[in-house]
Amino acid sequence: RSGEMAKLTQLIDNEVFRAYATYTAIVLLKMMLMSPITAYFRYTRKAFVNPEDTAAFGKGDSAKKYLRTDADVERVRRGHLNDLENIVPFVGIGLLYALSGPELSTALLHFRIFAGARILHTFAYLIPLPQPGRGLSWAVGYAVTFSMAYQVLKAALLL
Amino acid sequence: RSGEMAKLTQLIDNEVFRAYATYTAIVLLKMMLMSPITAYFRYTRKAFVNPEDTAAFGKGDSAKKYLRTDADVERVRRGHLNDLENIVPFVGIGLLYALSGPELSTALLHFRIFAGARILHTFAYLIPLPQPGRGLSWAVGYAVTFSMAYQVLKAALLL
Amino acid sequence: RSGEMAKLTQLIDNEVFRAYATYTAIVLLKMMLMSPITAYFRYTRKAFVNPEDTAAFGKGDSAKKYLRTDADVERVRRGHLNDLENIVPFVGIGLLYALSGPELSTALLHFRIFAGARILHTFAYLIPLPQPGRGLSWAVGYAVTFSMAYQVLKAALLL
Repeated sequence: RSGEMAKLTQLIDNEVFRAYATYTAIVLLKMMLMSPITAYFRYTRKAFVNPEDTAAFGKGDSAKKYLRTDADVERVRRGHLNDLENIVPFVGIGLLYALSGPELSTALLHFRIFAGARILHTFAYLIPLPQPGRGLSWAVGYAVTFSMAYQVLKAALLL
Repeated sequence: RSGEMAKLTQLIDNEVFRAYATYTAIVLLKMMLMSPITAYFRYTRKAFVNPEDTAAFGKGDSAKKYLRTDADVERVRRGHLNDLENIVPFVGIGLLYALSGPELSTALLHFRIFAGARILHTFAYLIPLPQPGRGLSWAVGYAVTFSMAYQVLKAALLL
Repeated sequence: RSGEMAKLTQLIDNEVFRAYATYTAIVLLKMMLMSPITAYFRYTRKAFVNPEDTAAFGKGDSAKKYLRTDADVERVRRGHLNDLENIVPFVGIGLLYALSGPELSTALLHFRIFAGARILHTFAYLIPLPQPGRGLSWAVGYAVTFSMAYQVLKAALLL
């Protein structure tokens, strides 16, 4: 059993895999942050979607008026969905890329640019920055994931 | 080739990894359940969004009236999206956590609490239970994922 | 270090894992394609959701009229969300399945049918094809993921 453990630990001791683990944890934590930001805007803007969430504000019509959409809440929610659409491919393809034996420096370049681009994307969406700020930060993360997918298919292709 | 296989099998034979595999399969199957539940409410409430889905109910205006939103359908869809937002980080961070060499008992504690919290969250959303039922079950799953991310970064940090 | 690398490379050299890597990259790239398709419809239909995205079309009311929903844009977005709901479970459960030691031919059968079903689902959603075209392609991908989850739980169950 300790032999198995040793082999498992080798994976987390491999530098490329450690870099993958670090940046995957960072971008997933960043994505998770969108939930409390949504909650913050729902409470400060008093804009809810579930009737049970407004019960604390009274009963009947006095609470019903808080069942509404708010531009700031919807903006955070779009940023959250965009994270899901882009971070899910990074996590899946990035794992396969990390296991395909890239150079550490090349892998770090991919991971750092992706994480930086997604953090910029969140600021561009929430502030919001004028376009093409958000568009460019989205495109950079997309291109990094595409580059990793190409490396995976080149190393692993078995149809 | 059989040597490689043996090494691969070791991963699935490792107890922490087996626990991760078990609970990841459970929470992903739970998330997948939201699709037939959505379909069930769409059919019983006759509330569809795609015109081609109402063709069985006749043509023209008689079918068009079923292109509408329904509070129950939207509720299930919000639960499904909340699953995506929370189960995706669990699956990604949980894999890295399982490979970071935690004690089996500690890992099982994390996985069991997360799975229990997400199952409770679904019941709290669909029944619905009064708040803070749904909020607390969400927060417990969130905290478990955060705890695993901390362990991953402590074991693997390579920026 | 080169010894560790060798062990990591074994994972990507394993044929079942290579097949998993190939089809995971394919379905994630297919999902990523939904983003530029959404952008294409937003630009050709001039239907945007963020005010900063319409700034290029002028200021004030002349730009505001492009902040609207469009049936084609919404259709692509539903297809994208359906991909997230179904491809995320495939990627997570498929990884565990690939590590559970299935026969290469059985694994390839699962991966090929899933990828084919999801590509068909996208065409069925975007053309759109009459039902049950989209429904059936969805159900086939769902059943494949369920079958893999059953194999994972059979091989790994540790509650």
